Amino acid sequence: MESLRVALGSRSYPIHIGEGILDERALYLPYVTAGAAVVTNTVVAPLYLPRVRKVLEAAGAHVTEIVVEDGEQAKRWQTLERIFDAMLAARLGRDSLVVALGGGVVGDLAGFAAAVYLRGVALVQVPTTLLAQVDSSVGGKTAINHARGKNMVGAFHQPSAVIADVAVLDTLPDRELRAGLAEVIKHAVALDVPFMEWLEKNVEKILARERGSIGYAVRRCCELKAAIVAADEREAGVRALLNFGHTFGHAIEAGTGYGAWLHGEAISAGMVMAAELSARAGLLARADALRVKQLLARAGLPVAGPALAAERLLELMAVDKKAAQGKLRFVLLEGIGRAALRGGFDERQVREAIVAAAQ
Amino acid sequence: MESLRVALGSRSYPIHIGEGILDERALYLPYVTAGAAVVTNTVVAPLYLPRVRKVLEAAGAHVTEIVVEDGEQAKRWQTLERIFDAMLAARLGRDSLVVALGGGVVGDLAGFAAAVYLRGVALVQVPTTLLAQVDSSVGGKTAINHARGKNMVGAFHQPSAVIADVAVLDTLPDRELRAGLAEVIKHAVALDVPFMEWLEKNVEKILARERGSIGYAVRRCCELKAAIVAADEREAGVRALLNFGHTFGHAIEAGTGYGAWLHGEAISAGMVMAAELSARAGLLARADALRVKQLLARAGLPVAGPALAAERLLELMAVDKKAAQGKLRFVLLEGIGRAALRGGFDERQVREAIVAAAQ
Repeated sequence: MESLRVALGSRSYPIHIGEGILDERALYLPYVTAGAAVVTNTVVAPLYLPRVRKVLEAAGAHVTEIVVEDGEQAKRWQTLERIFDAMLAARLGRDSLVVALGGGVVGDLAGFAAAVYLRGVALVQVPTTLLAQVDSSVGGKTAINHARGKNMVGAFHQPSAVIADVAVLDTLPDRELRAGLAEVIKHAVALDVPFMEWLEKNVEKILARERGSIGYAVRRCCELKAAIVAADEREAGVRALLNFGHTFGHAIEAGTGYGAWLHGEAISAGMVMAAELSARAGLLARADALRVKQLLARAGLPVAGPALAAERLLELMAVDKKAAQGKLRFVLLEGIGRAALRGGFDERQVREAIVAAAQ
Repeated sequence: MESLRVALGSRSYPIHIGEGILDERALYLPYVTAGAAVVTNTVVAPLYLPRVRKVLEAAGAHVTEIVVEDGEQAKRWQTLERIFDAMLAARLGRDSLVVALGGGVVGDLAGFAAAVYLRGVALVQVPTTLLAQVDSSVGGKTAINHARGKNMVGAFHQPSAVIADVAVLDTLPDRELRAGLAEVIKHAVALDVPFMEWLEKNVEKILARERGSIGYAVRRCCELKAAIVAADEREAGVRALLNFGHTFGHAIEAGTGYGAWLHGEAISAGMVMAAELSARAGLLARADALRVKQLLARAGLPVAGPALAAERLLELMAVDKKAAQGKLRFVLLEGIGRAALRGGFDERQVREAIVAAAQ
């Protein structure tokens, strides 16, 4: 097991990465009081909920299990209401703990529930997908969706700990593994040339579920993300770079109906669009845009958007959080590993990049 | 005009108190960017919304007006959804400002909307009721209600400024004025003997709407509250003392259906119950419990609970946030001006105090 640290003063916390650590009692013990709610979904519950329940009980907690539906559509108020209702029925007080056991959806949902239940209770993230282990469980972003856009309502609520057991990825479907790989590739493309080169050598090993390679990728992503979150917790600056591919990606998810495309799949096509726009804006060499696209293709990820008019994507992007007062801003590439926030694009340029990325 | 300061490091903010300052441009200017949403209700909108709209526009903002229904029942998710929808339709970004123009309900609701819209945007509180000016607009507590209890879902989200114009209280109905006075009396009874003595001399002047007396009461409450919030922002300790009367009061509100009793009215009866329990527990002299009751009665406030079984109030209190693991804790009095958190009461003692307070 390795442990990293997200340095945020009094809100600092550890990220534990290892094999078989899902029910390592010592990792939960510091955060357990009398009551704990474990939020998970119908897919993860039969696989891992009994082990997590057992370790929390061994640590002294009375455990309330809350099992939500699987998929992005769970990120809505009605699901939150069910969580609040179960927690209130169990009389969980301000000193209780929420454990988010699942992927990005469960982490966002349970994290937001923890952020606002009785104005905020403690949270431990136990990510069970590659996407959640390398990205969404770290950094405190939580949210639910709105008909007008993804993650429009939420909070920054840092966990007390992240427990990433790479052994649980054994049960992850291939499609989900690839979707997680999209966020791994994002970290490399946006921030880290040596990691990009490592991925270009090892992407097939990850797809073949070689634990050593997966463990390395998780650790490297967490290191990169921990440093960025420590520097800019509330995304006033550098943290926005982690949204590379996300402005396009969120529009794809919204336009196709949340859940049709997995988040990582939408981000993959979104990164190709962002790289294309970067190349067209003269920021990125054509060869590097191609390099991004080729790595995503090798990972089995979509490199072209859905059958949606560019016009519709543009409309959806205008309400994205990164659109300030109608002006479109994007995280673009000034080279591999060198993401930068660039604004002032007009709709024509963006439309052309969307169309070109589909070629 | 007088200005106090809530000292919270980088989140410090001013409280401006004065007559006719509702549309003082200089007070808004530091917080206005391109977009502002003013949240108010159907009663306040015709009275003060045009002036606030005008001052925000003069300060350079595009203004979105969001008018919600009047009353406690507005503090629910459906109302929040309307606010989010209007803000998203206006394409308000992360740099936008929410102005809460109204009483405690509007402040809680608009404050929570600001706390979670795009994971948090800036907020200016413009309280238009005595209750909001002396209490709820200061300190960053925001929330909505849940069928199982009041303020169960919310956030700590400090405003960027509080603008308390005592002249707007001229249009406040008498019943609302008295309800606000309950929170004024709470500050004195819980924290400040000289203020208690001042109120015992001047309560009729406040009821007669003498602006100087109202202004003094607002300022003294804000001073007391600012000091407490600065010492304990997230209610880990001393801030809980401001909940004097609230455990009983919240149960009264929930048991009678939110809105039947005004918050201040429920708190008034709650304070009588808490003083009774304090006397029965041997903490408070009988004469002092009577002194609390008499001041509330002079303010025209209820000093007995509603026609609800003590049993039902107990049941409702058990889910209150101040109930830790089924054990009942209360803010009690060890004397006038000396509130203290006391736990470990069994249901019988509390039931007897509820019954006795109704005598």
